[in-house]
Amino acid sequence: MFFASDNWAGAHPLISERLTKEAAGFASAYGTSELDRSIEARFSDIFETDVAVFYVATGTAANSLALASLARPGGVTFAHSEAHVIEDELGAPDFFSGMRMIEVAGPLGKMDAESLKAQIARFPQDAVHHGRANSVTLTQATEQGTVYDLSEIQTLTQIARENGLGVHMDGARFANALVALGATPAEMTWKRGVDVLSFGGTKNGCWCAEAIVFFDPAKAREMPFIRKRAAQLFSKSRFISAQLAAYLDNDLWLDLARHANGMADRLRDGLAASNTARLAWGTQSNEVFAVIPRATAKLAEDMGAKFYEWPTPKDVAETIQKDESLIRLVTSFATTTEDVDRFLDILQQA
Amino acid sequence: MFFASDNWAGAHPLISERLTKEAAGFASAYGTSELDRSIEARFSDIFETDVAVFYVATGTAANSLALASLARPGGVTFAHSEAHVIEDELGAPDFFSGMRMIEVAGPLGKMDAESLKAQIARFPQDAVHHGRANSVTLTQATEQGTVYDLSEIQTLTQIARENGLGVHMDGARFANALVALGATPAEMTWKRGVDVLSFGGTKNGCWCAEAIVFFDPAKAREMPFIRKRAAQLFSKSRFISAQLAAYLDNDLWLDLARHANGMADRLRDGLAASNTARLAWGTQSNEVFAVIPRATAKLAEDMGAKFYEWPTPKDVAETIQKDESLIRLVTSFATTTEDVDRFLDILQQA
Amino acid sequence: MFFASDNWAGAHPLISERLTKEAAGFASAYGTSELDRSIEARFSDIFETDVAVFYVATGTAANSLALASLARPGGVTFAHSEAHVIEDELGAPDFFSGMRMIEVAGPLGKMDAESLKAQIARFPQDAVHHGRANSVTLTQATEQGTVYDLSEIQTLTQIARENGLGVHMDGARFANALVALGATPAEMTWKRGVDVLSFGGTKNGCWCAEAIVFFDPAKAREMPFIRKRAAQLFSKSRFISAQLAAYLDNDLWLDLARHANGMADRLRDGLAASNTARLAWGTQSNEVFAVIPRATAKLAEDMGAKFYEWPTPKDVAETIQKDESLIRLVTSFATTTEDVDRFLDILQQA
Amino acid sequence: MFFASDNWAGAHPLISERLTKEAAGFASAYGTSELDRSIEARFSDIFETDVAVFYVATGTAANSLALASLARPGGVTFAHSEAHVIEDELGAPDFFSGMRMIEVAGPLGKMDAESLKAQIARFPQDAVHHGRANSVTLTQATEQGTVYDLSEIQTLTQIARENGLGVHMDGARFANALVALGATPAEMTWKRGVDVLSFGGTKNGCWCAEAIVFFDPAKAREMPFIRKRAAQLFSKSRFISAQLAAYLDNDLWLDLARHANGMADRLRDGLAASNTARLAWGTQSNEVFAVIPRATAKLAEDMGAKFYEWPTPKDVAETIQKDESLIRLVTSFATTTEDVDRFLDILQQA
Repeated sequence: MFFASDNWAGAHPLISERLTKEAAGFASAYGTSELDRSIEARFSDIFETDVAVFYVATGTAANSLALASLARPGGVTFAHSEAHVIEDELGAPDFFSGMRMIEVAGPLGKMDAESLKAQIARFPQDAVHHGRANSVTLTQATEQGTVYDLSEIQTLTQIARENGLGVHMDGARFANALVALGATPAEMTWKRGVDVLSFGGTKNGCWCAEAIVFFDPAKAREMPFIRKRAAQLFSKSRFISAQLAAYLDNDLWLDLARHANGMADRLRDGLAASNTARLAWGTQSNEVFAVIPRATAKLAEDMGAKFYEWPTPKDVAETIQKDESLIRLVTSFATTTEDVDRFLDILQQA
Repeated sequence: MFFASDNWAGAHPLISERLTKEAAGFASAYGTSELDRSIEARFSDIFETDVAVFYVATGTAANSLALASLARPGGVTFAHSEAHVIEDELGAPDFFSGMRMIEVAGPLGKMDAESLKAQIARFPQDAVHHGRANSVTLTQATEQGTVYDLSEIQTLTQIARENGLGVHMDGARFANALVALGATPAEMTWKRGVDVLSFGGTKNGCWCAEAIVFFDPAKAREMPFIRKRAAQLFSKSRFISAQLAAYLDNDLWLDLARHANGMADRLRDGLAASNTARLAWGTQSNEVFAVIPRATAKLAEDMGAKFYEWPTPKDVAETIQKDESLIRLVTSFATTTEDVDRFLDILQQA
Repeated sequence: MFFASDNWAGAHPLISERLTKEAAGFASAYGTSELDRSIEARFSDIFETDVAVFYVATGTAANSLALASLARPGGVTFAHSEAHVIEDELGAPDFFSGMRMIEVAGPLGKMDAESLKAQIARFPQDAVHHGRANSVTLTQATEQGTVYDLSEIQTLTQIARENGLGVHMDGARFANALVALGATPAEMTWKRGVDVLSFGGTKNGCWCAEAIVFFDPAKAREMPFIRKRAAQLFSKSRFISAQLAAYLDNDLWLDLARHANGMADRLRDGLAASNTARLAWGTQSNEVFAVIPRATAKLAEDMGAKFYEWPTPKDVAETIQKDESLIRLVTSFATTTEDVDRFLDILQQA
Repeated sequence: MFFASDNWAGAHPLISERLTKEAAGFASAYGTSELDRSIEARFSDIFETDVAVFYVATGTAANSLALASLARPGGVTFAHSEAHVIEDELGAPDFFSGMRMIEVAGPLGKMDAESLKAQIARFPQDAVHHGRANSVTLTQATEQGTVYDLSEIQTLTQIARENGLGVHMDGARFANALVALGATPAEMTWKRGVDVLSFGGTKNGCWCAEAIVFFDPAKAREMPFIRKRAAQLFSKSRFISAQLAAYLDNDLWLDLARHANGMADRLRDGLAASNTARLAWGTQSNEVFAVIPRATAKLAEDMGAKFYEWPTPKDVAETIQKDESLIRLVTSFATTTEDVDRFLDILQQA
């Protein structure tokens, strides 16, 4: 019953297998091998446009360097107030991009269009004391398990465009959002106005596979240098390519995300039917937020369940009692129906 | 005949195997799993003292963040003029540490003690305009394939100590140096005055396994924050630990380094006996530098050999003719005697 | 009728005179002259304790480098949401200190103690993903013209102390706050728990005189290097000292602040008695915030008055009508009663 | 006998006078006043082209931010090995620009063209590990008192152009070089290929007046933000403009430089005629380097002369005996013939 995070799982067997296969033989380093190039080509196929792809070590690196590639001095970036770049990356995006992250409000992890407009208006292009609007970063799926639909993405990127801002998407759970929407990668990104994507594979079955994807390769010209100076250029780059080869082959990535989302559905259904617990809010990807009695949470933990108590967002604060706990449950490619059902059983018995 | 670099090899089978084995099951993230902790304990055993260990993505990251941990504002670091931190890391050490890298001369990749003293003397502790001496970084094995012996290390670290400077060792090829000297890890590091080590596993049979090792854990207090803000904290940290588990088990790492060094010995012996090529200088680890006729170099490349022509150091410049080429040959765990002999044959036939 | 800002005034005649006097003759550079040293000694007298003093070029530099001297990697600083370091310094404090500025709410420009506690609680010392509490910066007088009384300062610094945080005071309008409280410099700073002060002279009659003052010189050890690397070490440092010599002589600085505050009192009294305008809120230093009909504001501008319309703080938003404007009126050493009265007349006649 | 540095002098009386004059009255802040604008226009007149001008606090700031405006990630800047940006700015240029300073050799403080070419060749535009050539900075007058003639400047900037590099000129002693050459400001800068200039007034009779001058205003677009984030935007910017108004009026700046150079000529002539001292090398501006017996140096200091012993450049090292000292003598607008003659007398008497 490991629902703490999708990064508690290891790697999918097909990915380990591919690492083993590619381990033999020699290949040129620093992203220049045939395998490396074939994966870049694969990304272009998947996104239906020529893209430039840069591997980095972590999702934090992907976000930070993507924003750095958009940055100008004195610029600010707009992000949802619960976004990973604000809450969980120790200021790395600020450090690498030189920009301040400006919080945009919005329910359930999604930036509200009006709030975004209002915040952008505070940072005009000549605001030499205050800061000038530079870029918008949106998280898909969000930190609260919700998913922007295609028109919501369009609305936000259009606001960005009208203000001359670049658009970054933090896709640490890109595949989960994609299968939730039933959209194509192109539809969810550049066709909706996204300039640069943090493409995350780690949380969805890889060991370590994070890539920055530029939908206009011309905008990626500085990135080889930005990445190297950030100490993020792998020598045996092939070990990322090998993971991604397996990950992308036969739509494994989508199958894994579908599985994780399906397990989350099962959890949601069980919680909705429960009389001891309830959903905190509706989610669409592989994260479920539930309100359960504190005693039940304690019991579940005692019986081996792993999950985190979550900071209560303001907009649901009133609905949660003192003896209740808001918990986050994350599923992954490795989650089993047995684990889900066992966990739901514990809740019921409590 | 892949002699371009030891990072052209993939990973050793035992390392891939261990990755496959550890892929199953769940474990807590960000370096807190049992496996992660067991590897940190293993490092303490190997180094015969309590150490603090921090995984990072690249050798450049290890060097940059290690130096950052020693840095003070306005400080400068002393490195051999051919060191990786100066020649091959795009200023990442400067960027992360805020320090300037000061070149120290010395033959064959090793800092000369008198040159080091002279350079340190130029940066007194109150030199608010010029910069103040902060630390010394030495590369073991060096970029020119040579190895500092234990007394040479001692001499340099003692100069550092006398001037109040920290000492970093860039051990991208740590194992190769270790087996070349027949020394213990402790003898080659903290027992000779090294404060912090970049421990490299990638070049010696891992996919990606670089660690910063502090010999005084008290000096590592800021590192968790330095590393995270540098976007170098892996979520599935376990994938490094799994590699290192196999790497360190049964002295695999030393065996792999011995093999690589042995292949280099065979190359050296062959070159020494050759009448068409010659050793540029004596080396002790897994890098061999040879002078061969340009035509021979061309022939070897045409026949599939991979190697780099190398910038000629000043001290040997006079010994190389215009129609000759200085080449670097790097061996690795994956180099075979067949490859070495075939390459030597080509040289002889030329 | 120049009420736009106190930095629209030039320099006080005594200060210009002293610059002229010190212009003759030679003196050693970079802060080592007799005059420079005498001013540092004067600061120690004024603050009744041994202090270390560092001149810098701007208030932004003073704040940024003061915070940099307190910073640790991954640290965050707490500031009122309207503070200059957040609103008006283009991210320079973040850039130099490497820290993120965290907003603390509170009415009328003053941090609320409970809000500060709540924000600090979000950043525990081991929060490697989220950031760790490092320091508190409070602005005295505040950006909204109010002044923390001594017990309010004590309350905030005590919260800082209990959490192990450093305390910085942004004293761009230090003298105005001091005379408003009738306190001594020592009482308003280190006796109430302040570690480091941005001492501003520019807004109060100097041309350019900003200093960072450390109440524990031991904590200033890195500052000579931090300042020089920030390109803030003046060569003819004497030109700051000359200004400060005149500024501090015979309590000129306090007289100038008293004059400015007195002019603000006169404005306040006039506004309170007005039937066409009203005070937006009570202030204590040299800034007055008034609500006036938009037509009146237009008229006043047409007649030559200079002031800025001010962003409306949330807590007074409801009290301001659509056809009204919130304006900020700043007085200085150079403001005359004639200007004040003329301005009040315009308001009355409208 | 103050020959230690030209920054030991105060300010010229006309400059103090102008500060006094401008001190009265109000003017808008942050460089937007009429006086500020008139000075920018004056710069355009003086340089015979539309320029963009940015005041900063120090010469180090001017150099650092000018280079920052030219920088790209992973770029390197080429400077003479004795240049101020390398020797005397504590790494501020590296810190603000993110670039490494690469040393170029050359006799008497001037970059040698062949050495520059050779260094540029080491940093090709695709050198993602090593760094890519970005810009050249040349110091006029040099740190060794020499002056590049117009064709020498042309030669170096042409090499820069051919390699796609930007060109910065460190003009801390711009006026001294200008009058030494008898050239116009335009001839010595943009007409010879200079893109951006650090225009120094401080060493030549101002209190504090340093400006960054862009000869193509389009290249200055980011500078308002770069400067503000560097905490270098003065509020009472007018105090710089006032100094420059007097400085530029009636060619005061050129007269002051002529005087300083004339005093240096007198020193040179005296030294050339001396039988106890000799010129270390020929200089053309306001710095003279002399070799004198150590005993004489001691005597002169005892009698009140101020000067610095100077590190001996390699190319003259052999000509200096152990009992001799290389000293630097700097003249300024405030140097008198009496001081020069008295100093020469002491040398003769020794």
